[in-house]
Amino acid sequence: MKQKLNVKLKLTKVMEEKVTIKRSKLHELGFQVGILERGEKNSIADVPDVTVGHSTIIAGEGELKPGFGPVRTGVTIIKPHSGNVYRRKVRASSYVFNGYGKTIGLVQVEELGNIESYICLTNTLNIPKVAETLIQYHVDENQDIGVDTSTINIVVGECHDGFLNDIQGRHVQKIHVLEAIESATSDFEEGSIGAGTGMSALGFKGGIGSSSRIIKTEDREYVLGTLVLSNFGRKNDLTILGRKFITQTEEEPKKDDGSIIIVIATNAPLNARQLNRLAKRAPMGLAKTGSYGSHGSGDVVIIFSTENKIDHDSTDQTISMETVNENTKIFRDLLRAVIESTEEAILNSLLMATTVIGRDNNKKEAISIEKVKEILSK
Amino acid sequence: MKQKLNVKLKLTKVMEEKVTIKRSKLHELGFQVGILERGEKNSIADVPDVTVGHSTIIAGEGELKPGFGPVRTGVTIIKPHSGNVYRRKVRASSYVFNGYGKTIGLVQVEELGNIESYICLTNTLNIPKVAETLIQYHVDENQDIGVDTSTINIVVGECHDGFLNDIQGRHVQKIHVLEAIESATSDFEEGSIGAGTGMSALGFKGGIGSSSRIIKTEDREYVLGTLVLSNFGRKNDLTILGRKFITQTEEEPKKDDGSIIIVIATNAPLNARQLNRLAKRAPMGLAKTGSYGSHGSGDVVIIFSTENKIDHDSTDQTISMETVNENTKIFRDLLRAVIESTEEAILNSLLMATTVIGRDNNKKEAISIEKVKEILSK
Amino acid sequence: MKQKLNVKLKLTKVMEEKVTIKRSKLHELGFQVGILERGEKNSIADVPDVTVGHSTIIAGEGELKPGFGPVRTGVTIIKPHSGNVYRRKVRASSYVFNGYGKTIGLVQVEELGNIESYICLTNTLNIPKVAETLIQYHVDENQDIGVDTSTINIVVGECHDGFLNDIQGRHVQKIHVLEAIESATSDFEEGSIGAGTGMSALGFKGGIGSSSRIIKTEDREYVLGTLVLSNFGRKNDLTILGRKFITQTEEEPKKDDGSIIIVIATNAPLNARQLNRLAKRAPMGLAKTGSYGSHGSGDVVIIFSTENKIDHDSTDQTISMETVNENTKIFRDLLRAVIESTEEAILNSLLMATTVIGRDNNKKEAISIEKVKEILSK
Amino acid sequence: MKQKLNVKLKLTKVMEEKVTIKRSKLHELGFQVGILERGEKNSIADVPDVTVGHSTIIAGEGELKPGFGPVRTGVTIIKPHSGNVYRRKVRASSYVFNGYGKTIGLVQVEELGNIESYICLTNTLNIPKVAETLIQYHVDENQDIGVDTSTINIVVGECHDGFLNDIQGRHVQKIHVLEAIESATSDFEEGSIGAGTGMSALGFKGGIGSSSRIIKTEDREYVLGTLVLSNFGRKNDLTILGRKFITQTEEEPKKDDGSIIIVIATNAPLNARQLNRLAKRAPMGLAKTGSYGSHGSGDVVIIFSTENKIDHDSTDQTISMETVNENTKIFRDLLRAVIESTEEAILNSLLMATTVIGRDNNKKEAISIEKVKEILSK
Repeated sequence: MKQKLNVKLKLTKVMEEKVTIKRSKLHELGFQVGILERGEKNSIADVPDVTVGHSTIIAGEGELKPGFGPVRTGVTIIKPHSGNVYRRKVRASSYVFNGYGKTIGLVQVEELGNIESYICLTNTLNIPKVAETLIQYHVDENQDIGVDTSTINIVVGECHDGFLNDIQGRHVQKIHVLEAIESATSDFEEGSIGAGTGMSALGFKGGIGSSSRIIKTEDREYVLGTLVLSNFGRKNDLTILGRKFITQTEEEPKKDDGSIIIVIATNAPLNARQLNRLAKRAPMGLAKTGSYGSHGSGDVVIIFSTENKIDHDSTDQTISMETVNENTKIFRDLLRAVIESTEEAILNSLLMATTVIGRDNNKKEAISIEKVKEILSK
Repeated sequence: MKQKLNVKLKLTKVMEEKVTIKRSKLHELGFQVGILERGEKNSIADVPDVTVGHSTIIAGEGELKPGFGPVRTGVTIIKPHSGNVYRRKVRASSYVFNGYGKTIGLVQVEELGNIESYICLTNTLNIPKVAETLIQYHVDENQDIGVDTSTINIVVGECHDGFLNDIQGRHVQKIHVLEAIESATSDFEEGSIGAGTGMSALGFKGGIGSSSRIIKTEDREYVLGTLVLSNFGRKNDLTILGRKFITQTEEEPKKDDGSIIIVIATNAPLNARQLNRLAKRAPMGLAKTGSYGSHGSGDVVIIFSTENKIDHDSTDQTISMETVNENTKIFRDLLRAVIESTEEAILNSLLMATTVIGRDNNKKEAISIEKVKEILSK
Repeated sequence: MKQKLNVKLKLTKVMEEKVTIKRSKLHELGFQVGILERGEKNSIADVPDVTVGHSTIIAGEGELKPGFGPVRTGVTIIKPHSGNVYRRKVRASSYVFNGYGKTIGLVQVEELGNIESYICLTNTLNIPKVAETLIQYHVDENQDIGVDTSTINIVVGECHDGFLNDIQGRHVQKIHVLEAIESATSDFEEGSIGAGTGMSALGFKGGIGSSSRIIKTEDREYVLGTLVLSNFGRKNDLTILGRKFITQTEEEPKKDDGSIIIVIATNAPLNARQLNRLAKRAPMGLAKTGSYGSHGSGDVVIIFSTENKIDHDSTDQTISMETVNENTKIFRDLLRAVIESTEEAILNSLLMATTVIGRDNNKKEAISIEKVKEILSK
Repeated sequence: MKQKLNVKLKLTKVMEEKVTIKRSKLHELGFQVGILERGEKNSIADVPDVTVGHSTIIAGEGELKPGFGPVRTGVTIIKPHSGNVYRRKVRASSYVFNGYGKTIGLVQVEELGNIESYICLTNTLNIPKVAETLIQYHVDENQDIGVDTSTINIVVGECHDGFLNDIQGRHVQKIHVLEAIESATSDFEEGSIGAGTGMSALGFKGGIGSSSRIIKTEDREYVLGTLVLSNFGRKNDLTILGRKFITQTEEEPKKDDGSIIIVIATNAPLNARQLNRLAKRAPMGLAKTGSYGSHGSGDVVIIFSTENKIDHDSTDQTISMETVNENTKIFRDLLRAVIESTEEAILNSLLMATTVIGRDNNKKEAISIEKVKEILSK
């Protein structure tokens, strides 16, 4: 694992525009959601020591041959911190807004209030392969896993990229997970990349998007950042800062299912119960972009705090921790930050995504930056 | 209980404008939330046989004398149907979005998936008195309650009207609950009435609001209606159909707490699990009006279906029921209907509320209909 | 509230034996459940500063006249500490094992992880009257309740004493709640007393029972104590330390409903999530006495820790707390202590209860201490 | 998949005794838990059309070489019915008693109230490989999975067999899952087999155990069956029909963790909410064998009804179903049946297991049938 991976992505025409076409996050267009200040990068990586890595898998064109391609999929990894996450777990919680989804690992997250692995995103049917590699990775790092009674709980979330990708083919291999792990950085890309490669949202190309908010008080400053894997909704419902994107209703598929995985990080010291309270606000941000939590949409929120890490090897009888006083403006602003950063991360996933042509020449176009500007300027 | 109640409300100056000032629901201004058709009354009473009754208690003016007034409070009753609700229970569920609240009865609603009493709304500290009367009422109607092992589970929700009302005084008496019960009608009033008399929302006078949606398919038509008791949020956050109400931030109290109780009725045949899925969407509508689910806001959703009533006295071994197929457009539209009708019910609670001056001459102004029209016309 | 209450209990023949007949807790018979050491009193009051008070209401004999009697009911109050519980809240959680019950206050307990009132037990239909008085009591103590946005959340649990008591009569009055509050002591009585006056369990007279366990490590010692209000089950299922009480099945009512409220206190420093983990073990102790969680049994667990009290008035940005390391033997022993003390508290509720003759001369006999000794000696 | 698999198990000395030593289920010793009648096989396969298949993997002896062996592990599959489970889903629920576990699939089971795959049990770290094969199997059977928006949710439970097995090696391969699927029968074996091969419980060899109960009324008869994968607890706590197995406390490991997966099937018509009520009773049976739900024990209950199957392809607007009336003796007996069959299935897992020597010559002895008989005869 120590050698640098040197995976060559098979770039095809479908990705060429990525290099040439300028995409912009919402703040780069001069707008933002809500009233709280955003972090410098306006991403989950504004939370100190949180990084994100991608592996993007693109191969083949034309007709779908199940098991062979075309492939438009990938993996995205969120590292809660740069150390050994199994030995230094982070306080965590989750909220399943709509459980038509296959995210794994939440049973233990809820019981123990912590996450002890990288958080991985991929497509629905790739979960087992990704999980297998994540386990291998953490076992290699921690040779005591499995000895005695210990094991490791890994967290993998998913959306369904079958509109563009040969999802039955389950093309994510071990090397892709490792590439995502190795490439983790605080300057990660957004849009049609990693797990977002084949995703669609609100009638346009979706995928990875991120945003952050600063929560300040006289003597303290915390950051809360959100990363989404967006793959839900209809164009007719798309709403940007309160404005409908199209005014004339278009014909759209009856089954407007899909999913969204929302990963939230903060360096505010919060316990699992408090994190859960935050997580439950994320659908409020989701709602403002046009989701109604459709029946077939697996909408899952995963949240962690980088403070008060849990030492796996501690034999202390008690553990001390500091948590935000819930009866303060800080806590209220943290709730607000979840909603604002979720809405903006979703918008960024659209704004940063580039057009992708996939299986059976299915095409999902990038949203027009010009049209977004036009609508927001009214 | 059979004789007509003849309660004289002590009308004071604070309510005079009610008679003279025209208030309008959103659709009367020519607007509506979302895309689904609304019911004829645009209220929860569009669901056949659902009725709503109020008792409004207004007395005294000027300085707060705890225990003595001034009084600006009341009771609102939702009858799930016109029959004996204990003997013919309705399928039900609830969703506690933010549990900083004192709603009673939800433990049993969740276990058994039904509601067997009228649903009552009042202020926070009046819950015991209201519950006492509701129990008495249902025991009078059903002499077998308490005999053998049977009891009755009553549902009472609350918000905090202490800004305008002497809440410590707990001024709701038995007669008020009975008046609300007796006055139940499908043509109930909204705004500063019943439990809404002393409530404030989003910087303005709040209270009771309602809205409904029709869910149609080729051969079926269902109605879903929502009634809210609104008492949350800040003027700075107030958003109407995507537009912020004020553009310049105003100074507001740090603790923007409050609450909202959202009661949803439908005649679509749904079981408790399905009703719970619907209930979880209500905060999505709430979000669009400007709530962020503040720490101190008790945000509770109560939902029931009038179909598949449960016969208390049935000794049948099995029970047959029909439920909506979740994998249909009907079910998706029901989810959407919850969000749309919740948002619109909240807006209607503002639009229908009239200015109230309460304890210590605290004043909560009605939102200006003219300004709302102006904003929506842009 | 400051003057000493001087309530005269109307003692009737039904209670006379109480004075004359010696009842014994399990340990006084030379037995105990499980392996952990018990506290000195073997009661919830072994947890420092936790006290319990009762008000027992007995009046009338013979035929049931609904609303008039006979009365065999009462109130039991658990004080989490001797101070002002609203201003110094305790960390808490709950677990609804079977929600066919009307306990109030749990919505907020779960959201905020604390309890801010005395915990009160009574019969099902008395909840509103008891709640009303509890609110009054705490408002008198804390004049700021209701002012601004604050309110108080009270916790009241219940069982159904209608077999012996005129439950429709709702005979608990304000003075009884106050008597229970004023009489709280660490040397409280068990059996047919307070809320337990009219309760029946496992075919015999039930009611209040308590037990405790010590959790020790090299340098620390914690106490966990349990108090139950037992009112469930059939004689055919009664099991004492693994032995069935009767070997020949007796004819019993088909509807073996009832309920149990289990209140657990500890001075081990635990947060709400940890307390919830403990609470979920209580039904394991319940099971061993013969319960199967019957359909109509409201089985509710309420748990709190006296450590890490929450200062209502704190304006600190963050709060420090110490919690038990879950990966220690202490935590495992706390789980075990819940099960052992729950089982033993239930047995003590039977062993300490005295025969009561109630409405319609319904009679529930005390379990025979001699027979219990005999069975356990085999 | 259609060809018969011809997997040769590498039998070693450790399994020889299996052939020669007679093991007996509890009823074969002349005893049973509780009062309800058991089914003919006293297993989950008494529920019509439910079958169970195993694949047992045994290889190597002596010192643990992580990744190479020795191997003492396997796979157990429960088929909810003999048809295509994806196209004819079963009503289902789950209850996580202690979530220190990695079971996958529960998020969707809870949301939709159904199971649409075989239920698979294996060891903790094998989950991904098993899941991968299960997905492949069901995709092969249902070529439309992944097309449009559809996917498949698979359910895989786990315990930790690292005391006897090279768990880091993750030795379950595709062929083992297929073998388990192909070998499913109503006359399946119990004990040290399939997923139970390397499991230990209550100080002895554990693994697979099963039991069933009949629920009768005048005109109806239902079956409820339970299968456990037992891997929890200490010898000091082992209790058989109320009697402690050892009276002198033995030295045991401090960390008495482990897990149990409890799978319950019934042909009683129950909806998801009702199934959840049943599932919550399973820990009551678990408790009676000596578990206290230790911190590190992943205790998960999965439950399904074979009635009211859900047609994946139905486009009907509504679905009719019949469910048991909860207010009947049948429902109460179903609750009781869960507890009795869970306790007895656990005892059967011990009674049927044979001694296994595993990695590092770690040995877990089968419980002595003679000693059990002796204790029960007292």
